[in-house]
Amino acid sequence: MLEAKFSEASLFKRIIDSFKDCVELVNFVCDEHGIEAQAVDDSRVLLVVLKIEPSAFESFRCDKPVTLGLNLTSLSKVLRCGNNSDTLTLIADDEPDSIFVLFEDSKKNKISEYSLKLMEIDADMLRIDDMKYDCTINMSSVEFAKTVRDLSQLNDSFNVFVKKDAIKFVAEGDIGSGSVVLKPENDLEKPDERIEVHLSQPVELAFSTKYLLDIVKASTLSNQIIIKFASESPALFEFKLNSGGYLDFHLAPKYNEEE
Amino acid sequence: MLEAKFSEASLFKRIIDSFKDCVELVNFVCDEHGIEAQAVDDSRVLLVVLKIEPSAFESFRCDKPVTLGLNLTSLSKVLRCGNNSDTLTLIADDEPDSIFVLFEDSKKNKISEYSLKLMEIDADMLRIDDMKYDCTINMSSVEFAKTVRDLSQLNDSFNVFVKKDAIKFVAEGDIGSGSVVLKPENDLEKPDERIEVHLSQPVELAFSTKYLLDIVKASTLSNQIIIKFASESPALFEFKLNSGGYLDFHLAPKYNEEE
Amino acid sequence: MLEAKFSEASLFKRIIDSFKDCVELVNFVCDEHGIEAQAVDDSRVLLVVLKIEPSAFESFRCDKPVTLGLNLTSLSKVLRCGNNSDTLTLIADDEPDSIFVLFEDSKKNKISEYSLKLMEIDADMLRIDDMKYDCTINMSSVEFAKTVRDLSQLNDSFNVFVKKDAIKFVAEGDIGSGSVVLKPENDLEKPDERIEVHLSQPVELAFSTKYLLDIVKASTLSNQIIIKFASESPALFEFKLNSGGYLDFHLAPKYNEEE
Repeated sequence: MLEAKFSEASLFKRIIDSFKDCVELVNFVCDEHGIEAQAVDDSRVLLVVLKIEPSAFESFRCDKPVTLGLNLTSLSKVLRCGNNSDTLTLIADDEPDSIFVLFEDSKKNKISEYSLKLMEIDADMLRIDDMKYDCTINMSSVEFAKTVRDLSQLNDSFNVFVKKDAIKFVAEGDIGSGSVVLKPENDLEKPDERIEVHLSQPVELAFSTKYLLDIVKASTLSNQIIIKFASESPALFEFKLNSGGYLDFHLAPKYNEEE
Repeated sequence: MLEAKFSEASLFKRIIDSFKDCVELVNFVCDEHGIEAQAVDDSRVLLVVLKIEPSAFESFRCDKPVTLGLNLTSLSKVLRCGNNSDTLTLIADDEPDSIFVLFEDSKKNKISEYSLKLMEIDADMLRIDDMKYDCTINMSSVEFAKTVRDLSQLNDSFNVFVKKDAIKFVAEGDIGSGSVVLKPENDLEKPDERIEVHLSQPVELAFSTKYLLDIVKASTLSNQIIIKFASESPALFEFKLNSGGYLDFHLAPKYNEEE
Repeated sequence: MLEAKFSEASLFKRIIDSFKDCVELVNFVCDEHGIEAQAVDDSRVLLVVLKIEPSAFESFRCDKPVTLGLNLTSLSKVLRCGNNSDTLTLIADDEPDSIFVLFEDSKKNKISEYSLKLMEIDADMLRIDDMKYDCTINMSSVEFAKTVRDLSQLNDSFNVFVKKDAIKFVAEGDIGSGSVVLKPENDLEKPDERIEVHLSQPVELAFSTKYLLDIVKASTLSNQIIIKFASESPALFEFKLNSGGYLDFHLAPKYNEEE
């Protein structure tokens, strides 16, 4: 039996809202180590990996591994039915055909229970090897989101250049061009505005804004985003959950088709 | 002559906005006892009854009974033209072909006056007998509104079960099902969250969410909603005006067509 | 070379947003006296004149007069890319084919630079003679905006009557009619609510609400609007920039076609 209780319904709601626009059908694999999910978007350019550690729950129990195939649009509808301060408990049998979502308020005089039918989703769980990246950036997730949204006004893709002393985003469009340059900083009094760059070699990559606009919706999960680039492989955009776990987006860069 | 002055324009605006989406053409019957209106929606499933007592006005004078046939969409447009803190005065002759709506600010240096053409609306005033109900619920209007909106995501109708110790709302839909259970409570420090149930026998009824979604728009009128159910007759959803009067919605339940 | 720096990006953003819905292609004429722009809307009923004095800038330098032909929709997109508290610098060569828009935050660790391609816009700069007006009104720009928006619900034009002791706006429509009467006032403690009327003779004019709804978008520029009417010529609606300059709308009245 799975019985996983969040002390605040809003956390699970924010997690699901963070990637429901990228992928629709997702297997949530639950075992004693928590809940893990993987999904690839239709164009196979973006891989989303979610991990919620047992520590993120007020209480967590999973007697036997179980896979829950869910439609995120339906799940998101149900999650809107809780109040943010309610507790939220996910409940499933060992051989489930439904998952139960239970909301309880602190006074225990309102109990809302929803059941969602599970789906058979044909998707293998990929083993994601530890990648070697050329550079790692730590920065404010809000600042990154604003940069992506700003440059998306000019074109549907943009370039990123990372050097030891600067990160540069460049978009060229019909009406003109734009560049945003960020310098590393470490103001101890404003840790959320910290920008850190670690790199073994400079990086230059191009990305579709379409996917990045989806990825930055996860900014509600964490004040910081961790970005890892390598020249020949998918980039990683990671949002860590304070209470244990992460939401990772692996995005294939755009390759210059003329080369 | 009718001269009915609200100390705050926002009250009359909230009253009209509370039922303008259910019914369009409404006769407002004015006499020395205040203003009363009745209207049935096009499908004849919902009857709206409004009563504004003279005490709800800063001053009220109605020399001779007069009926004002108004289009609520037009009236609502005009009511948007006042500031919430303006006074609002309704003025009509004894044989009116227009109603005047007068807004005045507290400093008396802005006066806005609108006239609306009256309409001949062919509708009899029903006599609504005192009904005998099987149960009466007093609860937070906001909580009731949230419950209706939440369950409306699952299906276009839901069931209500009332017992001495619980009110249960249940919706079954394609993606799954949902139930909300509320327990009576009476926290004297939070009177608005009070839930009271009085019943002579348990009740089970079904309603279309379509109409309930309209009804709960009246939650801005009162912190509390009074709900009365009887097994074989329309339910009553009542919002009392603090200053005297009420807005009542009489809604026919859905009957199981297979029976 | 032009190098014009605003201490707050939000000022230039508000200026452009104030008239981008009236006109699309605008020549910005820059010289040592600041930046000036003129544009006529497609129907040739509305003339917009912008003047930004050098005092409105943190620093201003223009070695040689230069004309910058800009598409306001594109410019507005770029202006959304700054944070309100960033500084904004406009930069152009002496023979420019682009304008550069530079945003810098106070900590100097984020620099965003956008370039916009300039356009050849065929428009002469009109010399606007000092007009003689019959009356001048000073009033709250917010109050004027609300009056315009309220009356626009009744019809697509309205009349204005100005006398020494009152300004009256009147709209007649299918559902009824409305009038708003404002009395001059001068409460020294609330200077923004001041209403002043100076007139040499009473005025009666009619205007299309369509244009006035666009004009009142400039209310974000100034707490006060200055309105000047003459019986046989375009009215002036003026928003002064606190820091030096103005945005003027010259609007031709509607003439009674039956006369």
